[in-house]
Amino acid sequence: MNMVRARVGELVESNRFQVFIVGVIVLNAVALGAETSTVLRAELGPVPAAVDRLALAIFVAELCARLYAFGWRFFRDPWNVFDLVIVGIALVPAAGSLAVLRSLRILRALRLVALVPSMRRVVTALVRSIPGLVSLLGLLALLVYVGGVIASNLFGDTGDPRFSGLGPTLLTLFQLTTGDGWSDVMRDLMEHKPYAWIFFLVYLVVGTFTMLNLFIAVVCSAMQEEVAPQPAPPSPHDDLLLREVRELRDEVRALRFAGADR
Amino acid sequence: MNMVRARVGELVESNRFQVFIVGVIVLNAVALGAETSTVLRAELGPVPAAVDRLALAIFVAELCARLYAFGWRFFRDPWNVFDLVIVGIALVPAAGSLAVLRSLRILRALRLVALVPSMRRVVTALVRSIPGLVSLLGLLALLVYVGGVIASNLFGDTGDPRFSGLGPTLLTLFQLTTGDGWSDVMRDLMEHKPYAWIFFLVYLVVGTFTMLNLFIAVVCSAMQEEVAPQPAPPSPHDDLLLREVRELRDEVRALRFAGADR
Amino acid sequence: MNMVRARVGELVESNRFQVFIVGVIVLNAVALGAETSTVLRAELGPVPAAVDRLALAIFVAELCARLYAFGWRFFRDPWNVFDLVIVGIALVPAAGSLAVLRSLRILRALRLVALVPSMRRVVTALVRSIPGLVSLLGLLALLVYVGGVIASNLFGDTGDPRFSGLGPTLLTLFQLTTGDGWSDVMRDLMEHKPYAWIFFLVYLVVGTFTMLNLFIAVVCSAMQEEVAPQPAPPSPHDDLLLREVRELRDEVRALRFAGADR
Amino acid sequence: MNMVRARVGELVESNRFQVFIVGVIVLNAVALGAETSTVLRAELGPVPAAVDRLALAIFVAELCARLYAFGWRFFRDPWNVFDLVIVGIALVPAAGSLAVLRSLRILRALRLVALVPSMRRVVTALVRSIPGLVSLLGLLALLVYVGGVIASNLFGDTGDPRFSGLGPTLLTLFQLTTGDGWSDVMRDLMEHKPYAWIFFLVYLVVGTFTMLNLFIAVVCSAMQEEVAPQPAPPSPHDDLLLREVRELRDEVRALRFAGADR
Repeated sequence: MNMVRARVGELVESNRFQVFIVGVIVLNAVALGAETSTVLRAELGPVPAAVDRLALAIFVAELCARLYAFGWRFFRDPWNVFDLVIVGIALVPAAGSLAVLRSLRILRALRLVALVPSMRRVVTALVRSIPGLVSLLGLLALLVYVGGVIASNLFGDTGDPRFSGLGPTLLTLFQLTTGDGWSDVMRDLMEHKPYAWIFFLVYLVVGTFTMLNLFIAVVCSAMQEEVAPQPAPPSPHDDLLLREVRELRDEVRALRFAGADR
Repeated sequence: MNMVRARVGELVESNRFQVFIVGVIVLNAVALGAETSTVLRAELGPVPAAVDRLALAIFVAELCARLYAFGWRFFRDPWNVFDLVIVGIALVPAAGSLAVLRSLRILRALRLVALVPSMRRVVTALVRSIPGLVSLLGLLALLVYVGGVIASNLFGDTGDPRFSGLGPTLLTLFQLTTGDGWSDVMRDLMEHKPYAWIFFLVYLVVGTFTMLNLFIAVVCSAMQEEVAPQPAPPSPHDDLLLREVRELRDEVRALRFAGADR
Repeated sequence: MNMVRARVGELVESNRFQVFIVGVIVLNAVALGAETSTVLRAELGPVPAAVDRLALAIFVAELCARLYAFGWRFFRDPWNVFDLVIVGIALVPAAGSLAVLRSLRILRALRLVALVPSMRRVVTALVRSIPGLVSLLGLLALLVYVGGVIASNLFGDTGDPRFSGLGPTLLTLFQLTTGDGWSDVMRDLMEHKPYAWIFFLVYLVVGTFTMLNLFIAVVCSAMQEEVAPQPAPPSPHDDLLLREVRELRDEVRALRFAGADR
Repeated sequence: MNMVRARVGELVESNRFQVFIVGVIVLNAVALGAETSTVLRAELGPVPAAVDRLALAIFVAELCARLYAFGWRFFRDPWNVFDLVIVGIALVPAAGSLAVLRSLRILRALRLVALVPSMRRVVTALVRSIPGLVSLLGLLALLVYVGGVIASNLFGDTGDPRFSGLGPTLLTLFQLTTGDGWSDVMRDLMEHKPYAWIFFLVYLVVGTFTMLNLFIAVVCSAMQEEVAPQPAPPSPHDDLLLREVRELRDEVRALRFAGADR
């Protein structure tokens, strides 16, 4: 029994099997892409759907094999949990209000990240940089909320659909934070509220400054990891010291031989 | 009397009390958010307004307790002054032209920043980076003003509302500085003034270059604080030196024992 | 004669005189700003124009005094040349096609930069970073030109005014480089030329990548100046070495005294 | 025979010849620019086309000379291959569907980069930074593809031409990634699909975060090359050590002379 487990474990961890799975992932992604095109759908008929179902079956079998081989250790690797969730989405009966889940089947293509080591490293680095940003993101969310309530009170009565209620206002403030088309929003408002520019000026300066610092925090933490732990190249000063010490040793050696000769 | 003061001081500084105040702030922010929605206002009736008045009463009481407990020392902590101003806004009779102050009640949600230590650190770092930027911001303001007067003279007679007077022109130049929709502004102008592009090209290049340097100044000052003061890890060169010195000591020790033996 | 020169030199370099000139500059800038407003022009009548003429007279007198005091040395300081050019603009008879020069009078406000030391440092740093960027800016200009000729050939026959001739096309490519509204330009073109997106994709990727590197070059050169020349704090390894050497000296000293005792 | 080769090699590598080629490149670029203007084309007649053909002949002759002089070594320098491809484009019979190749003749202006050393260095640095980015670019491409398939499924039935099929959707997602006009796209969609904002919010946050990290990776690798390999200036600690060691040597020397004197 144990030997079967070990063998299954060896198989799913083998290089060949992983290349095979990568191939299935890519094929599945291409099939789901082909399904979006009405032209290709008419031409290929049921092929993409069949490929998708086959790929899903292979993924489910693979995950079962892993679960069998590794037991509870399976859940220790977060990438395994990621695989399980992504494959599991497709098994939820996607009818009624859950029909949107069908669109999420393509998320399986993200399994590529877990299987290609260099991408895995990149994503691990991305995820690791998040905890250091929580405070700044919290501050940004607070700014958007406070700005949203103020804008909702000030501009809610203008009839502008971008400020009709707290939800749309928060979305509009997120738009301002990314800097996309803020001047159009402001000029439209200024026809009703000539002093709207004060709000926009203050919000943009404060928001941009916070975003800038969010960005700098990311750069700094990345720098500290990459730039810092490198030994400095020897300075001319160090060479001087080494020469000095070596000369000293010669001196001492000479002294010793002189003592021995006497 | 003094003992009462000390006790009140202990109470307002206690962990439990601070968590309670954080709760009141969040509740107040949610209530003010709910007030902006016509649907929720109809459903909840006077509840949000009552929550807001209650929260205000709690904040006033808290600040009075602090003032009583700490006396003049209260004003030494800038965060206390910040609290006082923000809570004070709500006490100004907000009628007539001051009605806009009612919208600023939500600023009380920013008190969260003062109470959550990690956010406090972030904001302190933000505020500290400002003095180093004053010169660059002054230069940027000068550029916007000079550009505004020139644009006002050159394009004021085109009838474009974005250049009708110094105020709108300065706002338009601020828009150019953020890079949002500058090409639309330029193309509209070029119908009347075919050489308007010269102004835009010069202004954008100079403005972007200055903004870029403003940004770099922020990054550099952040770097210097975070990256610089770390001892370098030992280089292979240092190891060489240490080995050399140790060998030398053995040599000297041998010499001494040889001298003692003789 | 020489003594008069020295006295004039002392006067124009004195702190009081410089503060007076700063005041004149600010007053002049405010007057030129007021002149742009039709309301203020009606109210103040000939006052702004008079202030401007007076300020100009003071500047001309100041420059003459400096020229007299310093002679040819005047031209060694680039800030003096900057002052001379800026003040000189106003003396050109601004009629006919040179009427645009009248708008440039406000450039005199930039003299502030030369007189406020901290701004002077900022601008000096900005100007010094330019030589290191010449190659990259040249490459960028080459990219815009090459892209402009290609776009002009490919899209010149679509009747789109943004691609009617090399001039407008170069301006449009500059717009693409700043990323403002590129998708509108592309979608309009794609109605006539469905494959236009290939050009936009290639140009944006290459252009953004080059801009990014331009930006990094500026950051790097700024870093090297600010971050590099700081001695590293002593590492624990250095302390180890120092202790080792001190122990060694004690050893040698002991040896010597032992030799002397014998 | 060999001597002829050596002479030709010397000629094409000589400074004068390279300046001549730079001149031909610039002239060719100007001629191709002039050809795009209908006004200039009418005025100059067949001159630009003749200049272009002459320049092409010179380039072909130059490349033949180089091939003859260097033989197979010619292909070892990637810049030579770059020259060969760029000049070769013009020799393809540009008729029918290949007519677009005629527009690419201006790419020859990029030969300037290969001939001006400082630009060559800049481009070499750009190209060298690419391998380190492959993983991140792959991740970004994966995100755009996955987002494209999802958006195509969710929004394909709204009739919005920006989401009609996988191709346009991928282009729209690339537009979102650059942040240009994303709010217009979203607001148009939200008339049919009120929950479209969830997709946009998630995509923008994930995409921006990945782009940010792509950017940081470029900055970091550039930093490591430029900032890292500089010897630290001697710290006060190092000076202390040097003095200590020198004192020690004097001690030993004194000891030796003392021994010799006895």
